[in-house]
Amino acid sequence: MTAFEQLMAFQRETGALAQVAGRLNWDQETVMPRGAADQRAEEMAAMESVLHARRTDPQVGAWLAAVDDAALDQVGQAQMRHIRRSFERTNRVPAALATELARTTSRAHLKWAEARADNDFAGFTPLLSKVLELKREEGAALAEGGDVYDALLDDYEPGAKATDLEAMFAALRPRLVALRAAALDKPAPEGLQGTFDEGAQMKLTRLLAKTFGYDMSKGRVDKAVHPFSSGSGSDVRITTRTNPNDPFNCFYSTIHEVGHACYEQNIDEDYALTPLGQGVSMGVHESQSRIYENQLGRSRAFTGWLYAQMRDSFGDFGIASEDAFYAAVNRLSNNFIRTESDEVQYNLHVMLRFDLERALISGDLAVKDLESAWNDRFLADFGFAVDQPAHGCLQDVHWSEGLFGYFPTYSLGNVYAGCLYQALRAAVPGLDDQLAEGDLSGATGWLSANLQTHGGLYEPRDVIARASGMTPSEAPLLSYLEEKFGGLYGI
Amino acid sequence: MTAFEQLMAFQRETGALAQVAGRLNWDQETVMPRGAADQRAEEMAAMESVLHARRTDPQVGAWLAAVDDAALDQVGQAQMRHIRRSFERTNRVPAALATELARTTSRAHLKWAEARADNDFAGFTPLLSKVLELKREEGAALAEGGDVYDALLDDYEPGAKATDLEAMFAALRPRLVALRAAALDKPAPEGLQGTFDEGAQMKLTRLLAKTFGYDMSKGRVDKAVHPFSSGSGSDVRITTRTNPNDPFNCFYSTIHEVGHACYEQNIDEDYALTPLGQGVSMGVHESQSRIYENQLGRSRAFTGWLYAQMRDSFGDFGIASEDAFYAAVNRLSNNFIRTESDEVQYNLHVMLRFDLERALISGDLAVKDLESAWNDRFLADFGFAVDQPAHGCLQDVHWSEGLFGYFPTYSLGNVYAGCLYQALRAAVPGLDDQLAEGDLSGATGWLSANLQTHGGLYEPRDVIARASGMTPSEAPLLSYLEEKFGGLYGI
Repeated sequence: MTAFEQLMAFQRETGALAQVAGRLNWDQETVMPRGAADQRAEEMAAMESVLHARRTDPQVGAWLAAVDDAALDQVGQAQMRHIRRSFERTNRVPAALATELARTTSRAHLKWAEARADNDFAGFTPLLSKVLELKREEGAALAEGGDVYDALLDDYEPGAKATDLEAMFAALRPRLVALRAAALDKPAPEGLQGTFDEGAQMKLTRLLAKTFGYDMSKGRVDKAVHPFSSGSGSDVRITTRTNPNDPFNCFYSTIHEVGHACYEQNIDEDYALTPLGQGVSMGVHESQSRIYENQLGRSRAFTGWLYAQMRDSFGDFGIASEDAFYAAVNRLSNNFIRTESDEVQYNLHVMLRFDLERALISGDLAVKDLESAWNDRFLADFGFAVDQPAHGCLQDVHWSEGLFGYFPTYSLGNVYAGCLYQALRAAVPGLDDQLAEGDLSGATGWLSANLQTHGGLYEPRDVIARASGMTPSEAPLLSYLEEKFGGLYGI
Repeated sequence: MTAFEQLMAFQRETGALAQVAGRLNWDQETVMPRGAADQRAEEMAAMESVLHARRTDPQVGAWLAAVDDAALDQVGQAQMRHIRRSFERTNRVPAALATELARTTSRAHLKWAEARADNDFAGFTPLLSKVLELKREEGAALAEGGDVYDALLDDYEPGAKATDLEAMFAALRPRLVALRAAALDKPAPEGLQGTFDEGAQMKLTRLLAKTFGYDMSKGRVDKAVHPFSSGSGSDVRITTRTNPNDPFNCFYSTIHEVGHACYEQNIDEDYALTPLGQGVSMGVHESQSRIYENQLGRSRAFTGWLYAQMRDSFGDFGIASEDAFYAAVNRLSNNFIRTESDEVQYNLHVMLRFDLERALISGDLAVKDLESAWNDRFLADFGFAVDQPAHGCLQDVHWSEGLFGYFPTYSLGNVYAGCLYQALRAAVPGLDDQLAEGDLSGATGWLSANLQTHGGLYEPRDVIARASGMTPSEAPLLSYLEEKFGGLYGI
């Protein structure tokens, strides 16, 4: 075997072990007996230790030195790009720092949950400060003299730069703030009435998953506290949740996770268990979950079909027409919480976090001042005041886990979804007719063939550019939102 | 850290990884999407490769050389006994042979399933011959000049010798053959009538699991094609199955697996993830599953309680009294299949396999002659002829997987259960009154405190001797069976 073949065999085995570690997570969130938590922590730590040893194995360095990338084909070169980047990044972080980060974020995560429950931001600040300090240290080690925030961002969105994201948010912000204000100035559309049987919700949610192209023979749908998608290749599982008063939470969580899952399921199977065999970045991943959920799932055409399905499943729920249903699905309201936000306000939630975490990383903002900075900015963007930390700077788990640089990928995903949707409409002329029939195959087939199949073959912006035929920009998303919500609210 | 402490930390991590590998098996048999099989095979192979590397790690040899066992306490010495034995055994088998065995048994397992479905023993002989050849080679490497069959047996029942088992079976055989013939000479008791709702079976099966002391907070009950128990410590899961015409299959599979699972759950938690933290042998494990299932679960006292539960769950099912129900639970019939056998005939099935596999290993029996040897022996012991290989020498999975030496541990378990039950009756005077109330706590509490808690601390025969207060022998089992079935059948 050549050095490249040996390296790839090693990578595939590492990939298989990473899938196993992921399955443990799935198990923990869905079926694990509650008394098994302590033992599970030891099992996960043992898996992490095995994976870390493989990721930093000097043998990988020897193989990397022995491979001549230029002699490989395009796929081989892309594999090498991923392997080299990952090996170099992992080895730049001192082992003691990595251990300290794992220990501190684990403690901070528990403390965050406690602080959120108690609405006690001050109680969380010592550990958050420690996490921030360690992440700055990690970022400096990764950046090697470059921008520290960019170095952290690179973990989630390879190649992205904070200055580009800053420009993107600067373009989004004024028009979203204006659209939000105009919509909320109008009478609110009516909402759903009554309660919705949770068994019937799960039945319809499974139909939705299949309708959006999720391959049930290579996945499964379970309930969990937080919806998520887990796994790659031929075992990609999703979870959703039910709330008797809010079936949209169940259905749109499912469609969102199906977007993530279909991306993983539809990657060229030749790439299975290799670095190319998974979604290329968080932003591109989110573009798939978002376009499934919003541009397709919350469209006028598709909601017409969904309205009929819901009437079949639940009878009358106080909405008299398809148009009223479409308005209910897309209703704006004042809300503190990012994850419960509508399409218009979502990116406002994200850019607030982006600006604050950059300031934290640069040192311009101290942890002790985070709560007031959050509250000031929230009031400016949303026009009403945060009433408690659990609705403000304690609402998200990310910072407790050290995920600085993750938030902006949500908005990048929305922007990418905007580009893809514009191209999709041009490529599939009868799209609305199909959606109105509950036929997603034209849309998802196009996304699968033009984007999902490539896995990690192209860099994130490149795969969006290739699929959409345009240089990625926020313009299509803004036009789409202004047209959709302008129409819905008569603005 | 001392060498012993370092070795134990390493062992605990290996133990955690072994739990993860076991969980993959559970996942595969219960919840895995059917399209994930190929990827799962790679995931399991990767885990096996990691575990094998750790089990043969030269660092373990260095630690073993550095530890002075005599300076350790009793628990430490027992840990070292297990670690040394496992390391020495693993290192006696050449790596190439271990790989070849894994590959061949994997192929043979698939071929066996095919051959059984096609009733084609001849089609299975080439691969079975290959497995046998490799197992003889492995046995010779392990035995280092000693008995090859004993060396294989040692994997499942450390310390057991084939000559002792031969004596045990020689004592069992004539009295079981006679008891069988006498019982089948009498009119057969009536069986259950009607169909039994599968949801209600699962509900009652969960009640049975709890009744027998299974801790649901550290386990779960699911359906699978084959019932099994999986895991150690605080995550021990069981499966069962339902058949609308045969609720006993569901209930007694559950009670059997609960016996295995409670053994694992009740081991001293200080031993978790170490070599002492799991059942000490297959025979001792089976003693627990069997005493739960048979001596307790099929007793006159307990079946009285179960009869009432089943009447509550299913209404009238054609059995008019507790006595008739007790007879139905314990009914003998002519049956080809070991796993469907009653208490009297079960050990006859096992000893047939024990004699044949010893002859295969010694070379006295050729694979090509196995089918006729099986059929001749079956006719002699059971008095009727095997009608097809699927009901004969193709019925069990064991040999295809190379598990030569496993079968006799089933009977050893029954013999051990006989000893334990005699001691239990003496230790818990009001046992029948408790069982008649569905109160298993006296029985399972005694087993937990006197046997299960010790895990791997004592050698198999020793832990049975300590708990039962007697030198293990087949006499208590034979007396129990003759008294029970003599009474049931009026012999």
